[in-house]
Amino acid sequence: MKAKVHVTLKNGVLDPQGKAIGNALSGLGFTGVDDVRQGKYIELDLAEKDPAKARESVEAMCRQLLANTVIENYAIELVG
Amino acid sequence: MKAKVHVTLKNGVLDPQGKAIGNALSGLGFTGVDDVRQGKYIELDLAEKDPAKARESVEAMCRQLLANTVIENYAIELVG
Repeated sequence: MKAKVHVTLKNGVLDPQGKAIGNALSGLGFTGVDDVRQGKYIELDLAEKDPAKARESVEAMCRQLLANTVIENYAIELVG
Repeated sequence: MKAKVHVTLKNGVLDPQGKAIGNALSGLGFTGVDDVRQGKYIELDLAEKDPAKARESVEAMCRQLLANTVIENYAIELVG
């Protein structure tokens, strides 16, 4: 079973990396880009076959390692 | 209109960051994680309202800045 995890900065948290991308895009001549936010995308291959147990285990991974829950949100999607 | 862009390493390209996450997870006692791949997730707020034009413009951004197409794939999803 595969798990796809998105880790994104919470609203209101400054995103200098997104800002840098926005500036680079406008430097390249792309107009009409109002805001850019960058997050992380993590794909996990899990041996676990049971979706409920897999989700529980990935939740624990997010809380303990993958996301800094003070400033980041995470979203988990299970596939297959 | 919002664009969500996933930039991931192509298959066969080594992913040391994913490897490090995998090792850290097993160090924390998480078993049954076979493989970890880390990619980037970028959200763009676009002024453009026409989906076809927005996709074209985001494609160009990916090719020119957001992804290194030698080693990375990108996927674009338009919302709203």
